[in-house]
Amino acid sequence: MKTFLSLTEISGAMRRGEVTPSQLVAGCLERIDRFEDSVKAWVLVDSSGALEAAQRLTQELAAGKCRGPLHGIPLGIKDIVDVAGMPTRAGSALTSASPAQEDATVVDRLRQAGAIILGKTITTEFACFDPSPTRNPWNLTHTPGGSSSGSAAAVSLGMCLGALASQTGGSITRPASYCGVASCKPTFGRVSRAGVVPVGFHLDHVGAIARTAADTATILHTISGDDPRDPAVSPRENFKWPMNANHEPPRLGVIRPFFFTRADEEVARLTQQAIDGLRQGGATVIEISLPDCFDDVHAMHRRIMAAEAADYHFAQFSAPRPGYGPNMAGLLEEGFAVSMSDYQEALRHQKLFQNALARSLVDLDALLTPATPTAAPGLETTGDPRFNSPWSYAGVPTVSIPCALTGEDLPIALQFIGPAWSEARLLSTAIWAEKQLGFHAIPGMLQT
Amino acid sequence: MKTFLSLTEISGAMRRGEVTPSQLVAGCLERIDRFEDSVKAWVLVDSSGALEAAQRLTQELAAGKCRGPLHGIPLGIKDIVDVAGMPTRAGSALTSASPAQEDATVVDRLRQAGAIILGKTITTEFACFDPSPTRNPWNLTHTPGGSSSGSAAAVSLGMCLGALASQTGGSITRPASYCGVASCKPTFGRVSRAGVVPVGFHLDHVGAIARTAADTATILHTISGDDPRDPAVSPRENFKWPMNANHEPPRLGVIRPFFFTRADEEVARLTQQAIDGLRQGGATVIEISLPDCFDDVHAMHRRIMAAEAADYHFAQFSAPRPGYGPNMAGLLEEGFAVSMSDYQEALRHQKLFQNALARSLVDLDALLTPATPTAAPGLETTGDPRFNSPWSYAGVPTVSIPCALTGEDLPIALQFIGPAWSEARLLSTAIWAEKQLGFHAIPGMLQT
Repeated sequence: MKTFLSLTEISGAMRRGEVTPSQLVAGCLERIDRFEDSVKAWVLVDSSGALEAAQRLTQELAAGKCRGPLHGIPLGIKDIVDVAGMPTRAGSALTSASPAQEDATVVDRLRQAGAIILGKTITTEFACFDPSPTRNPWNLTHTPGGSSSGSAAAVSLGMCLGALASQTGGSITRPASYCGVASCKPTFGRVSRAGVVPVGFHLDHVGAIARTAADTATILHTISGDDPRDPAVSPRENFKWPMNANHEPPRLGVIRPFFFTRADEEVARLTQQAIDGLRQGGATVIEISLPDCFDDVHAMHRRIMAAEAADYHFAQFSAPRPGYGPNMAGLLEEGFAVSMSDYQEALRHQKLFQNALARSLVDLDALLTPATPTAAPGLETTGDPRFNSPWSYAGVPTVSIPCALTGEDLPIALQFIGPAWSEARLLSTAIWAEKQLGFHAIPGMLQT
Repeated sequence: MKTFLSLTEISGAMRRGEVTPSQLVAGCLERIDRFEDSVKAWVLVDSSGALEAAQRLTQELAAGKCRGPLHGIPLGIKDIVDVAGMPTRAGSALTSASPAQEDATVVDRLRQAGAIILGKTITTEFACFDPSPTRNPWNLTHTPGGSSSGSAAAVSLGMCLGALASQTGGSITRPASYCGVASCKPTFGRVSRAGVVPVGFHLDHVGAIARTAADTATILHTISGDDPRDPAVSPRENFKWPMNANHEPPRLGVIRPFFFTRADEEVARLTQQAIDGLRQGGATVIEISLPDCFDDVHAMHRRIMAAEAADYHFAQFSAPRPGYGPNMAGLLEEGFAVSMSDYQEALRHQKLFQNALARSLVDLDALLTPATPTAAPGLETTGDPRFNSPWSYAGVPTVSIPCALTGEDLPIALQFIGPAWSEARLLSTAIWAEKQLGFHAIPGMLQT
């Protein structure tokens, strides 16, 4: 079975006739059968739908028609994203059990590109902080991270070759890093959120989790682009992908001290080793500190998230109900208490940080930080998003790649942050770094 | 006296030694002496400060030092913009009478560029809707428009060669058009508002009023650029100016039906004549209609303006007081009543319109509308901003140029609207149109 190669490798193998979409889906379903009971990554697996689609796409390939690099590739969809015919439960019993009438824009684009929708992956409640039942494939007593818990766990085990994920704070980067896979969060306004359950208008991003940075690029490039159905989406042109392969070693800015003093000793040390490796590979690495307004980023991010989530849930539910988890209820209570004046102050601060960050990024290909302060903690939490939420707040793109294993055999990752709209350069930088590090991790569950 | 040439022409004459900054300031002060009693454009004229600065700049020129196209040029500053040593009264007795401690960023840039700050021009109360005492130089029984009333009237009479103005709805374009002079409102984030009394964070712009589009370009280019003191200002590079002169006739989109059905018959007819003239000059003119979301633009603009003005004034004054004019008090009452949910809805709509408008502007150099629905009305109002506020709302740049006189001998203007950050192209388009139309107007007061 080929499901443990990268999406990019399998796509090549498929075009060479070495594997068919039907075989690939069968392989993924086998993995799901084998591991789902212990890991709990899926809300719903549409075996028959996926097998049917695979058959059609196998025939197309046999007839010489290939739709592109996602042709015949099985993907998971985070269960806050509408897939026609499947309910969107968003991890909450308060949502409707009726199937969605139509695909979210991003799902429609994946289907057009030949991807196979394998099913819906588990999210934390409303993509916020109450842990889902999902476990970390690297160690079942640890969290896979949230909120895109199922997407990260499923990709990590090869149950699918990539997955849609979403991030308001750290919900793409954090689970991907905890589970030893790559992720990409786009620039705010690059990818449509139409048909996706919102958390906060000014913070929500849809992105991708997959085995490698190049795999996330393929998915991101497919789902990007104009969509009048999401007010935030810009009609600007898609980024060029694939990029011309040969480029100079990148110029990287390592942010100190915050991202090292707040990381645990082991993460700081392993990250430093990875950075040293990149420098030896030819990267220029300079140290930078963030502007003063960074100090308020986490508080202001939380304020906008709470106020906007409260507005959305107020319209639907009037007030927090017994049906909410304790973290979600707390967030909403907090949001209901945000005053107009405080909300306006936070939006002004968001602009301030966006522009200050743009100043820091001039002349750099990317900023570089550890992706998380620690490896995956236990199951009582989904982990700490504080290394990721500043970039959701600023709306700039990020890519994360696994870089090391801790002594406890849990993966950690590097996070690359680029200027707004620099996805092509940022992804190329991450792909270059991946090659330099030569790090690949397979969870123990899969090795036995 | 040379004060009635354009800023650009006088700047050239000054470099050729045909006129000195001191002579120029003396000429402006003479005009002010002659007309100020009847027009009331100035809160404060700093004759001695201006003459001193002129003397210094005259000596610099004599010593062969020219700071650029604003060297020795006397300008007016709208009285919501801080000028060190002068109070900023914002048209309200509720503000402090103490002098500002430092220049606003834009004023500092003008000074560095050699401009002479002649004084503060009258604004409506807090740059909103209550009429100021200023009269229209074309007819003293008509409004000069607002809120940059004094700036427009002063430039129109050659009391100064250009002026800073600001716009939240139509406060730059409307008074400039009513007074027969040109104006430019930049892209949101291009020009710093640090040291400027705010109306609404997401809507306020600082721009320029001057005799010609080229004159406004010179001022705008000087005041543009990064400023960490205004959270909204982007570190992006300044636009290139002057542009290479030779360019193709522009591709223009005329917006129908709104801007013609809402204009009075005479404005619609004279605008059509001007458009026909541009077409004969070689412009490609296509007709476009705006996206559906345009229907809510005015209501949502008003909502954001009211909510943000209320927040600013709440902090200062707690609640509307007797000291507020009726329109301002009404705006604030309205703002205090805006709910969080309604405010968030309006911000989402603003993004929606911004992106929809960007779609409409693809493949065009500019959109084109009449600058105002009518020529200047009577003194009981500052006129109707509805043809201008959509562009303040969208944050896209506009340039207006006078294009005709009505039967009552009042000027009207064309308004050009470009994509975000397209100032160089937009200003070049307006300059091209100005040349085609060959329209120049001098108020009757000056001819006698």
